[in-house]
Amino acid sequence: MAFISPSLRLIRLIYPRASFSSSSSTNVKLAGGVSMVQGASRGIGLEFVKQLLEKNERGHVVATCRNPNEATGLLNLKHKFDDRLSIQQLDVTVESTIEECAKSIQERYGSLNLLINASGVLSISDKLQPETTLSKVQKSSLLFAYEVNAVGPILVIKHMWPLLKNGGGSGTERDVAIVANLSARVGSIGDNRLGGWHSYRSSKSALNQLTKTISVEFARKKDPIICILLHPGTVDTDLSRPFQRNVPEGKLFTKEFSVQKLLTIINGAKRQDNGKFFAWDGQEIPWS
Amino acid sequence: MAFISPSLRLIRLIYPRASFSSSSSTNVKLAGGVSMVQGASRGIGLEFVKQLLEKNERGHVVATCRNPNEATGLLNLKHKFDDRLSIQQLDVTVESTIEECAKSIQERYGSLNLLINASGVLSISDKLQPETTLSKVQKSSLLFAYEVNAVGPILVIKHMWPLLKNGGGSGTERDVAIVANLSARVGSIGDNRLGGWHSYRSSKSALNQLTKTISVEFARKKDPIICILLHPGTVDTDLSRPFQRNVPEGKLFTKEFSVQKLLTIINGAKRQDNGKFFAWDGQEIPWS
Repeated sequence: MAFISPSLRLIRLIYPRASFSSSSSTNVKLAGGVSMVQGASRGIGLEFVKQLLEKNERGHVVATCRNPNEATGLLNLKHKFDDRLSIQQLDVTVESTIEECAKSIQERYGSLNLLINASGVLSISDKLQPETTLSKVQKSSLLFAYEVNAVGPILVIKHMWPLLKNGGGSGTERDVAIVANLSARVGSIGDNRLGGWHSYRSSKSALNQLTKTISVEFARKKDPIICILLHPGTVDTDLSRPFQRNVPEGKLFTKEFSVQKLLTIINGAKRQDNGKFFAWDGQEIPWS
Repeated sequence: MAFISPSLRLIRLIYPRASFSSSSSTNVKLAGGVSMVQGASRGIGLEFVKQLLEKNERGHVVATCRNPNEATGLLNLKHKFDDRLSIQQLDVTVESTIEECAKSIQERYGSLNLLINASGVLSISDKLQPETTLSKVQKSSLLFAYEVNAVGPILVIKHMWPLLKNGGGSGTERDVAIVANLSARVGSIGDNRLGGWHSYRSSKSALNQLTKTISVEFARKKDPIICILLHPGTVDTDLSRPFQRNVPEGKLFTKEFSVQKLLTIINGAKRQDNGKFFAWDGQEIPWS
């Protein structure tokens, strides 16, 4: 290697077993890998950051959220894992923030080995309420759900694509970089027996189709990346809280349990899983 | 019947076998039924209007489009079928035009027996081009496709719902009113082997999920309405013209052929078909 920048020297001091690419000063491949969790300020996203930091003592995590200054959960983790956690501002509805974040990751790490899109909206006062009937369906709610739940994650993948290609499976036990989009079983069309929740359901169906479409391109181009969709179960978070009344006993998971299960799926994912949709227990969910 | 308004007297003179509801002066149930074709200025929509008028000599048709004054195909049909064809302005992206149209149908006919949502967009210069790669995916194109292909048809159903409920199967050989949304096989997720066309594909997946969701509510409420999704095949229209190069021989249908097949499905549809997705040849398409 001809040249190591001061920042890379520092990384080598901290992670003596890190492997470095020879192609450019920004093309760093860190042992333990670099994971990005988008939508990390609370709920499942925050728990992913926590477990990724705790379970992989060499892994780096980029955690993104809309308002880093108010993300107390992330700030608490930052105290404990200062050198392995980077908190960045990213709003999936503002594409320029995604581009900025990609640039920053490029400069700091040069690659990504895992991207988890954990952001999502089910209800938000005066913008979106889960619809109980067609007569309550509003154009603005539908488009808002599509923008946050389907378009946002796809734009994140678009801008992180070069970083993921660069990361591949290096620095991790996997032979590919992983894109994991958090979906939901209610996005499955044939499984829809209850109706309702028009905006949320159809935004997840759109996300599923977009993820599948991207997975086809990654495979065709032989990129060292696979995309998977994950159904976390019904998890006790702010998102599900107003709707937990009808959850059967034993089916409301803690976020610790759900994320532990989902990380098992992510860490075991192989090329042949590209484009598939898995439930928390590893069972494949049919699109129908 | 206590009272028949002058306009109903006129209808009775023209359609002596028409049956009338006793509930209100606007609650007319016309023998032959009232069909609405949304997106009727050209292509498959226009052909539906033509065949509905030609094949059912007592049927009424409401044909809607964005610019009735420029809809020469419809205006030509109006010369021939003046008393059975009503042309109305409706733009699926402007909800007030849908509401106005529903009011107008309420006043003129009082019910609907068939609603065909035939509008759809695949490419439009400077707004939407079918994407060949993730790097070309634009937020504005995705949201535009969702607005036209998924949200629009659903808002039309929302506002026509009372008219369809009122129509039920009356005046036709069917025992239910039908909502037929034109979808496309490329909206099927598991069937997606080629990738690309992110906006179009995912907007049709969203439409499929929304249609299924609505069908569940209609069934639960025991409304005399069913929803079906139709894949017309690849039809020689303006929509498909730029993309016909790779269509296998014998698989590019005329609109006459495709619509004839689709009308056979519509006319034979039963309650148990509610929420299903059919190809032009009557084969059910799995969501996957």
